[in-house]
Amino acid sequence: MSENNSVNGTATTVVAESPFLKSLVFQIRGQDNYGVYRNWSDELILKPFVVTKQKKREISVEGEVDPVTQARIMAFFRAIAAGIEKETGLISQVVIDLSHEGFGWALVFSGRLLLAVKTLRDAHRFGFDSLEKLAEEGDKFVQKGIDLAKRFPEVGKL
Amino acid sequence: MSENNSVNGTATTVVAESPFLKSLVFQIRGQDNYGVYRNWSDELILKPFVVTKQKKREISVEGEVDPVTQARIMAFFRAIAAGIEKETGLISQVVIDLSHEGFGWALVFSGRLLLAVKTLRDAHRFGFDSLEKLAEEGDKFVQKGIDLAKRFPEVGKL
Repeated sequence: MSENNSVNGTATTVVAESPFLKSLVFQIRGQDNYGVYRNWSDELILKPFVVTKQKKREISVEGEVDPVTQARIMAFFRAIAAGIEKETGLISQVVIDLSHEGFGWALVFSGRLLLAVKTLRDAHRFGFDSLEKLAEEGDKFVQKGIDLAKRFPEVGKL
Repeated sequence: MSENNSVNGTATTVVAESPFLKSLVFQIRGQDNYGVYRNWSDELILKPFVVTKQKKREISVEGEVDPVTQARIMAFFRAIAAGIEKETGLISQVVIDLSHEGFGWALVFSGRLLLAVKTLRDAHRFGFDSLEKLAEEGDKFVQKGIDLAKRFPEVGKL
């Protein structure tokens, strides 16, 4: 992590304290085949996940969802899958089904059990108010997935 | 059903004897907003689902999957969902996630339970050897879904 790319001191703490955010950064770095992010701080990598209400209004929901946004949605749910796997050992699949209008589903499943389900609307505007909010939302999905996996172990292993 | 569009006598019997094929025809007629199929026999409507091995080889897997083929895949899994609903009362969602290369997933789920899961490969060539084979495959998915729904009723209703 190079200091000069740090967004600010608070953000660094947020990432350091959130296993979910660390896992999300790990997902993105893992896909970084050309080393674009090599010298970027974790905070800078996560910055595009923060989309304020004001900014959301500025993003058009016309046409296809930008591939970069699609990749961001995928990374979010892959990080959820990784968080659940860490706790339960269940290896899961992530399926993102987006229509051309930005409506659709994000699903994380293992065996016959759906560990995370989210309907997507205006996926063009996918993002969170702050890094804290991102961490909180991600953790919520992970926790719910872990609970389900523990409640229905048989279904998750089918 | 108009007699002059009948493919042949045997096919008529196949559809009449298969609740799955009837359900599939029902799905397609239900989407027929412009009445294109109004005067078509059930067999003629199902004909594109029959793709022989020879014909499969002739279909290129380059580029996007044809929207008509995508609609056919959707109808197949919607008919499965309808078959499961009829027996269990569970209303399910169908999600088809296809990459541009024809790879992907078809999922039918209710609550947190996956009633049908299929990985798709070369979806451009989606089809079955015969109407009998189509009926058999569909029934297999429906039966498996009903079994799961009965085994894990709690998960299907989450």
